[in-house]
Amino acid sequence: MANGPALTLDQIGSHNAERIDALAEDYAALDRQLARRGVDIAQVKSAVATFSVAVPSWGAGRGGTRFAKFPIPGEPTNIHEKLEDCGLIQQLGQVTPRVSPHFPWDKVSDYAALREEAANLGLGFDAVNSNTFQDQPGQAHSYRSGSLSSTDADVRAQAIDHNIECIEIGRQLGSRALTVWVGDGTNFPGQQHLGRSLDRYLDAAAQVYAALPGDWRMLLEHKLFEPAFYSTVISDWGSSMMAAQELGPKAMCLIDLGHHAPNVNIEQIVARLHKAGKLGGFHFNDSKYGDDDLDAGAINPHQLFLIFNELVEAALEPRTGFDPAYMIDQSHNVTDPIESMLCSAEAIVGSFAKALLVDREALRAAQESNDAIIAFRALRRAYDTDVAPIVALARAEAGGAIDPLALYRTLGWRERKAQERNTVGLGAGIV
Amino acid sequence: MANGPALTLDQIGSHNAERIDALAEDYAALDRQLARRGVDIAQVKSAVATFSVAVPSWGAGRGGTRFAKFPIPGEPTNIHEKLEDCGLIQQLGQVTPRVSPHFPWDKVSDYAALREEAANLGLGFDAVNSNTFQDQPGQAHSYRSGSLSSTDADVRAQAIDHNIECIEIGRQLGSRALTVWVGDGTNFPGQQHLGRSLDRYLDAAAQVYAALPGDWRMLLEHKLFEPAFYSTVISDWGSSMMAAQELGPKAMCLIDLGHHAPNVNIEQIVARLHKAGKLGGFHFNDSKYGDDDLDAGAINPHQLFLIFNELVEAALEPRTGFDPAYMIDQSHNVTDPIESMLCSAEAIVGSFAKALLVDREALRAAQESNDAIIAFRALRRAYDTDVAPIVALARAEAGGAIDPLALYRTLGWRERKAQERNTVGLGAGIV
Amino acid sequence: MANGPALTLDQIGSHNAERIDALAEDYAALDRQLARRGVDIAQVKSAVATFSVAVPSWGAGRGGTRFAKFPIPGEPTNIHEKLEDCGLIQQLGQVTPRVSPHFPWDKVSDYAALREEAANLGLGFDAVNSNTFQDQPGQAHSYRSGSLSSTDADVRAQAIDHNIECIEIGRQLGSRALTVWVGDGTNFPGQQHLGRSLDRYLDAAAQVYAALPGDWRMLLEHKLFEPAFYSTVISDWGSSMMAAQELGPKAMCLIDLGHHAPNVNIEQIVARLHKAGKLGGFHFNDSKYGDDDLDAGAINPHQLFLIFNELVEAALEPRTGFDPAYMIDQSHNVTDPIESMLCSAEAIVGSFAKALLVDREALRAAQESNDAIIAFRALRRAYDTDVAPIVALARAEAGGAIDPLALYRTLGWRERKAQERNTVGLGAGIV
Amino acid sequence: MANGPALTLDQIGSHNAERIDALAEDYAALDRQLARRGVDIAQVKSAVATFSVAVPSWGAGRGGTRFAKFPIPGEPTNIHEKLEDCGLIQQLGQVTPRVSPHFPWDKVSDYAALREEAANLGLGFDAVNSNTFQDQPGQAHSYRSGSLSSTDADVRAQAIDHNIECIEIGRQLGSRALTVWVGDGTNFPGQQHLGRSLDRYLDAAAQVYAALPGDWRMLLEHKLFEPAFYSTVISDWGSSMMAAQELGPKAMCLIDLGHHAPNVNIEQIVARLHKAGKLGGFHFNDSKYGDDDLDAGAINPHQLFLIFNELVEAALEPRTGFDPAYMIDQSHNVTDPIESMLCSAEAIVGSFAKALLVDREALRAAQESNDAIIAFRALRRAYDTDVAPIVALARAEAGGAIDPLALYRTLGWRERKAQERNTVGLGAGIV
Repeated sequence: MANGPALTLDQIGSHNAERIDALAEDYAALDRQLARRGVDIAQVKSAVATFSVAVPSWGAGRGGTRFAKFPIPGEPTNIHEKLEDCGLIQQLGQVTPRVSPHFPWDKVSDYAALREEAANLGLGFDAVNSNTFQDQPGQAHSYRSGSLSSTDADVRAQAIDHNIECIEIGRQLGSRALTVWVGDGTNFPGQQHLGRSLDRYLDAAAQVYAALPGDWRMLLEHKLFEPAFYSTVISDWGSSMMAAQELGPKAMCLIDLGHHAPNVNIEQIVARLHKAGKLGGFHFNDSKYGDDDLDAGAINPHQLFLIFNELVEAALEPRTGFDPAYMIDQSHNVTDPIESMLCSAEAIVGSFAKALLVDREALRAAQESNDAIIAFRALRRAYDTDVAPIVALARAEAGGAIDPLALYRTLGWRERKAQERNTVGLGAGIV
Repeated sequence: MANGPALTLDQIGSHNAERIDALAEDYAALDRQLARRGVDIAQVKSAVATFSVAVPSWGAGRGGTRFAKFPIPGEPTNIHEKLEDCGLIQQLGQVTPRVSPHFPWDKVSDYAALREEAANLGLGFDAVNSNTFQDQPGQAHSYRSGSLSSTDADVRAQAIDHNIECIEIGRQLGSRALTVWVGDGTNFPGQQHLGRSLDRYLDAAAQVYAALPGDWRMLLEHKLFEPAFYSTVISDWGSSMMAAQELGPKAMCLIDLGHHAPNVNIEQIVARLHKAGKLGGFHFNDSKYGDDDLDAGAINPHQLFLIFNELVEAALEPRTGFDPAYMIDQSHNVTDPIESMLCSAEAIVGSFAKALLVDREALRAAQESNDAIIAFRALRRAYDTDVAPIVALARAEAGGAIDPLALYRTLGWRERKAQERNTVGLGAGIV
Repeated sequence: MANGPALTLDQIGSHNAERIDALAEDYAALDRQLARRGVDIAQVKSAVATFSVAVPSWGAGRGGTRFAKFPIPGEPTNIHEKLEDCGLIQQLGQVTPRVSPHFPWDKVSDYAALREEAANLGLGFDAVNSNTFQDQPGQAHSYRSGSLSSTDADVRAQAIDHNIECIEIGRQLGSRALTVWVGDGTNFPGQQHLGRSLDRYLDAAAQVYAALPGDWRMLLEHKLFEPAFYSTVISDWGSSMMAAQELGPKAMCLIDLGHHAPNVNIEQIVARLHKAGKLGGFHFNDSKYGDDDLDAGAINPHQLFLIFNELVEAALEPRTGFDPAYMIDQSHNVTDPIESMLCSAEAIVGSFAKALLVDREALRAAQESNDAIIAFRALRRAYDTDVAPIVALARAEAGGAIDPLALYRTLGWRERKAQERNTVGLGAGIV
Repeated sequence: MANGPALTLDQIGSHNAERIDALAEDYAALDRQLARRGVDIAQVKSAVATFSVAVPSWGAGRGGTRFAKFPIPGEPTNIHEKLEDCGLIQQLGQVTPRVSPHFPWDKVSDYAALREEAANLGLGFDAVNSNTFQDQPGQAHSYRSGSLSSTDADVRAQAIDHNIECIEIGRQLGSRALTVWVGDGTNFPGQQHLGRSLDRYLDAAAQVYAALPGDWRMLLEHKLFEPAFYSTVISDWGSSMMAAQELGPKAMCLIDLGHHAPNVNIEQIVARLHKAGKLGGFHFNDSKYGDDDLDAGAINPHQLFLIFNELVEAALEPRTGFDPAYMIDQSHNVTDPIESMLCSAEAIVGSFAKALLVDREALRAAQESNDAIIAFRALRRAYDTDVAPIVALARAEAGGAIDPLALYRTLGWRERKAQERNTVGLGAGIV
């Protein structure tokens, strides 16, 4: 179990050696173009090098829908194997140094050992995620009618205890945040009293909040629908903000990109929550229809850029503090999860890089003079820029691979792991 | 101009005389059924008799789209004629005793006279509406780039002054609320800074707020899109609540049923704003796609019922005060506005009547025991009930017509008015 | 296993005896009202008595989401137990005399015996459903990359064979239709060639079509998204119609109410497919967000009515034949499936009854003269009518219970079945 | 009226001289990168040079919403001035050599002279657009209740005659297509018979079709909603395809990017219509909510790329002919229309250029082997490429400006035109 890094420095080194000249040429050309545009490429690369995003432990396995899951040979079957895969992702991509665990899925007997195991793989732990949306074998009370908002005090107590246990585990793992997403809601008009459901949620959440260490945050994740299909207790950013305000300063709102109504302007929600001092973090993914949990940027890369544009703006104007947590949250139903997380992380950091290229002075001037087309083009010029050389060079300089996917494909990783790991059975659902 | 009621008591009396027996028979049958269900029909009818909803002065004319408007002969061309039509609606339907005016559209030189003119028609004035979404001839500054949120201080000052003028007019008219809807927003990413736009809006709105009389309310109306198509400053209930909280206790949120993203659960927004003490009122209408401004209940009558179900719940549990303002806000593009407003008002009061029929004790018990199907059916049994006899009898007892539409059709109103009134020209748009 | 009816005639008789007087009173009152409106209630009741809708075998068990499923004690675990529950539903409600089976879920060794077993319970079999959206243990080829549209000829052959096997089973069961829904599609732009995917689907579907008996129909079910989240091969009614036209006259389109983009006018799709001679049938359910599979009419009963209004219109004007198949397709995640199916069937037949009440002569006249408000009110007057007495009396006259849900609740059915049946384990997904 | 080109060659030449070195440097760098990727940049540039898209005459003026229109000084007030502006756009951008006129808006007495006037400005005429969605002063019959689908035979005849007149004008202008978009539909359930409305539309459209010259196409433009808000006669691509099939081979479907339900996969519709041999053309624009008519690519540039990816695929596999008409159709509410059309045309041709960069062999191989991530990245690598150097050099080589917007801004065009042209008054609506 005392695994170290999956790749040798030699493997990465020889991969990069074959590609560094072409990369350098592209980078130099971009440098010249950006210099003409008044942008210092080295500064952008430095900023990119500081960026990181957490990966979800559950994202290391194949995901599924309610209809089916199609496992792949060699996918991880426990937290140890998931860490192993996440360690490889971090070695290759150098932008995902933390793993966000989910309990009870990732339960072990010795969390200090798990922390050390992760550290040996170059990984730390990000926000811990509680799970009160499904029942576990032997559980005293069922979440069939809700958890933190249940009408049953015993159910609520169980959900509170579970969240507090997650905090305790998180302390041992070195985490500093608890992400709370509940599936609580209804499938029929009238099924629950909409006001009292929120009251109960808030009462219960306050008990979890009270158990937070001083330097922790409680990240509230809203979602419009699924698994509840008529109403959801924390359905939108307004409800989330109400809850975070009532709970206290350590409670912040987490934005999952797939949890909104159709057509909603998510980047404006970023700005709103920032103004309210409640912008806690993100679950990155992409979607076309609902909570599709597709790879970040796969469907609407422009939206991802616009979100990072708001984040760069927020960092420039940190009204009420600005320190959002970045996590990936995707369901890899048709790809190798390692490949999807490598590509998603690259799309995310690339969007950040593009946002850094915006000529903010020109943008501000155009906004002040209501010159819509010039303001728009200040963003568009940055978005249209191919930042791949910046991202790849920053990665290589950090010790990662210039082309992570290509290197991964040479490793025979899944074939080897298929020998070592248990087989995942047929079934449906996310895990 | 000193018009009195359009109809004589005789006209209504003879109309009702022909229908009262059938109505009484239906009412008696419903009485027996409701008695079996433990509901006192007389109490319901009494509650229904207290209900009222305001009509919009602008709704008295034909509305249009950006493509076209198709005027009808005899439609009103000024506030006096609009009041005349609204007076007839109130005489026939007895549920719309107040008119909500819009300025500068309804400007006159003598508001005391206008108030008296309305009173002679049996009408009072509801919330005054300001207009900073279009330019008026001779206006000093254009709203082309926004109003309360404009980057231009002169534009903001003009918008503030106009709102304060509306308050002053409203005082003279006996109104007690100012409804503020701005079209401010953008059509391009980057066009404006999303955070600073809201800052400017709030600064300007605070100056309007400061001018509010002590017993007035300022109703903030949010809208997802149109006329702005990328971002809107007050786009959703979350933004509206933020603004209302920052402005102060007299600032409340107004819900227009057509101003939301697709699929959103509007009745839950009602519950959320009630919890926050910010449920200020409604603009009733219906929609299938966007802000279609169709007749209330025409597309989704069940949603209208569920909203009234929340309102009845809220009245039972008035956490933070409960006194929402009810207004119709529709665009009558293909009907005679008088007919649409008669039918819409009936749909609205009928939804209220249905909500009163819900067996709240059974509902509460089912909710507490998580008996979803019984809870749902408590609502559904009420919704399925044909409340027409209750609504019609309450109306008749208040002096209105048993079948307002049928009586209206006998009057030759439009034909007569087409002789008296100016012709509305071709064009496009809402007015 | 040779079960007969679950209820004795006495049980139903004594239940009805307690309720018949009240029902008769309500029915008589409605009779008088309808007579005034020129409607013969007896004719409506007769038409209602001829209406039936199939129930899905899979709907007899608790459904779930990708996050979780919460089983209930006593739910059925195989087709025999499902038939038992469906038999009870039919005894109580008398509107669901057929069961739609799903293979391989409902596979047995002796279909003749199964057919007899069903007949003993008062049941026949409706359309057979094939399943190529999930893998079965021991299956030669995986559907992970599609089925009828797969790039792999072996996979397509396996899917074709399975469908043909379903037809064969259906013949033995007395079915006359095959419903084909495939989850085929993609999660990434570029994942498949959009045109060639449809070509392959059509080639494969043609081979299934060729195996159809002469009096069978092949019902093609489209769906916008889920399980595929970027593109779906048969995503909308246009694609479905293209496919049905290419396959031949026995291929028809099936409309599931939850399989459309937001805001879409489903009743117009009914009219369009009827015009094209391709209106094959319905999967009834309701939804607010996506394919929520909620109980029919629970969210938008008005839409259900408008669909039946089109069906009544279509029956009056059977351009190209009119014989749609009616089925329920719901996921009962929070209710007892028996209760949900009883209530859903009632909502469906009630919508049909309301559509029968429309004054079609007045409607047609108003349409011809472009009198929108009168045309609308012709529908609305029918919709507002409480048809419960008609539906309940028709049911009682057919041998069912006046209040099926109330009678069911007295039976202790689940408690008894929990003793007899195996326990369903925790998990996620639809089955 | 005998205007020639607005710019001298010197003006463009000196503008380009200042920029050509930087452009050449960027182009050379991209050339080297693409060569490494196996792409011949010169071939791409040649293909780009052949691309063109028509501009709408109405797009040359400021657009508006139903709430307001905010005119700008110097905007064109008639077809002559519109042509003048479109000529300038073409001179600067060299990608919009044709203008699509709209009647009766663009009516003149001498179409031969108009054609010559356009030719002098370097312009030809694209599809003619009929207008039966608004009434004109003095018109015999109103379109208030529809046009081609009206219940009134006189109205239909008038609409047919108008369309035939448009064809006749188009012949004189050298056009080869008639675009038919009707606003026909309803705002209330029941307002019209959904089936018969389409029947009437088809009967009337067939009479227009019969008047088409042999080498013309009739482009049917569907739209989900607006100006009708409950149902629209030609609401979606399925209805459009039905109509085009019934009318005949010269009838084709036109896709406006903003006329679809939320979330719909438009690029798949492109593939479907191509398969059906009915892909007639496009109205390019962008939208976030409804038919927002924003600048092409401003909101979702990735979608625009995916559409062009389908078009490149279709051109490679021209099953049933492939010759779509490309037009811009936007409403420039907040920008100078000349600037918006310059930028939109650039976004459109840039999307085409990106689609040409896709490694189709790698894509096809990945599709065949169900390697989703590699297939996706084949598209993404092309999309991420900054094609500005290719587009700009192609433009410069064709005689256009390297930076059209920058050059336009030096011209003082609007200030000059404000002296020459009449002032547009306040109002609302699209024109």
